Amino acid sequence: MCGMFGRMLNLHAPSHAAWLPAALAAMDDVLLDHAHCEKKAASTAMSLLFRYPDHLELQRPLSELAREELAHFELVLRHLDRRGVRFKRQRPSAYAGRLMEAVRPQEPERLLDMLLCMSLIEARSCERMKLLSEALEDDELRSLYKGLLASEARHHTTYVDLARLYFDADVVRVRLEALAAHEASALEREWPATHVRMHT
Amino acid sequence: MCGMFGRMLNLHAPSHAAWLPAALAAMDDVLLDHAHCEKKAASTAMSLLFRYPDHLELQRPLSELAREELAHFELVLRHLDRRGVRFKRQRPSAYAGRLMEAVRPQEPERLLDMLLCMSLIEARSCERMKLLSEALEDDELRSLYKGLLASEARHHTTYVDLARLYFDADVVRVRLEALAAHEASALEREWPATHVRMHT
Repeated sequence: MCGMFGRMLNLHAPSHAAWLPAALAAMDDVLLDHAHCEKKAASTAMSLLFRYPDHLELQRPLSELAREELAHFELVLRHLDRRGVRFKRQRPSAYAGRLMEAVRPQEPERLLDMLLCMSLIEARSCERMKLLSEALEDDELRSLYKGLLASEARHHTTYVDLARLYFDADVVRVRLEALAAHEASALEREWPATHVRMHT
Repeated sequence: MCGMFGRMLNLHAPSHAAWLPAALAAMDDVLLDHAHCEKKAASTAMSLLFRYPDHLELQRPLSELAREELAHFELVLRHLDRRGVRFKRQRPSAYAGRLMEAVRPQEPERLLDMLLCMSLIEARSCERMKLLSEALEDDELRSLYKGLLASEARHHTTYVDLARLYFDADVVRVRLEALAAHEASALEREWPATHVRMHT
């Protein structure tokens, strides 16, 4: 991805140019999907706590991260409320599932891949929230996304840092590069999207 | 259970008299189990968020509750750290599983029973934390439990109040009474315990 921002996030390619206008035209759908994404992010962080109870150094950072995702979930619920959009069940987008297809089933590779896939989901959210925060005309939504994008960038870094606690820096770098290419292709396959989401 | 405190918590019977001395003699084990209990409580609250996405009024309170459980998990981790006890994998106690055997599989009874079983787990934790807070000689642990027991009582009330949002007050009262009797018997079957826990 071009630009310092993309490199910082380790993304392989920027979002499709058509995503932003489509998202801006369907912000209620994007917000609803966003609420589900925050809840799912909290749940995945927590599932890692249960899967790796003996990885002591994961416990506190992932618990803090899950709390922050839940606080964001509640924040997005308030914005849905304000706009009169009812929070409701939604079929998950295929993006995360496709991304996670690259997770190798055996340990310790599974842990490395899970942490790095989560880091890339956070990075993609950050990139898109930045696009939204620069383009939205609605003051409240603009400041919502401006406020959140810094957390997403921090979560990206947290996941990569946690991977570095358990794996050599070179191993992490090479695998992150490969997974970032896979992430860009998982995203590409969603386009053109029939339903605009945070990750389509 | 005798006393205003027990009635407030809707518990059917007090803890076995031998639990407190056994717990005081094995506080490292109790703390380790307690850390797992907080994590599990967060995870169960979150699982309800995923199971009932169309129950809008559950979303914010359960998300807040899950965040608070995670904050307590981190707090207990700090106490384990301070005492030089390593957080590690542990086989779950049979208590919660036995309690949940009473959950009826069909909806909407399942939701009612889940909320009330969670309310009773919080109540039992509160009762035991009160016992610990009154008996512990270690200042830091005493103030840990004194601080936490109010949250547990509040969580008990939150779960009962959420049940009342979706079910008649009389239905909630009768079912809570029945489940409280079942909870006391699930606890009784654990005794004498070979391994002291928050819920044995």
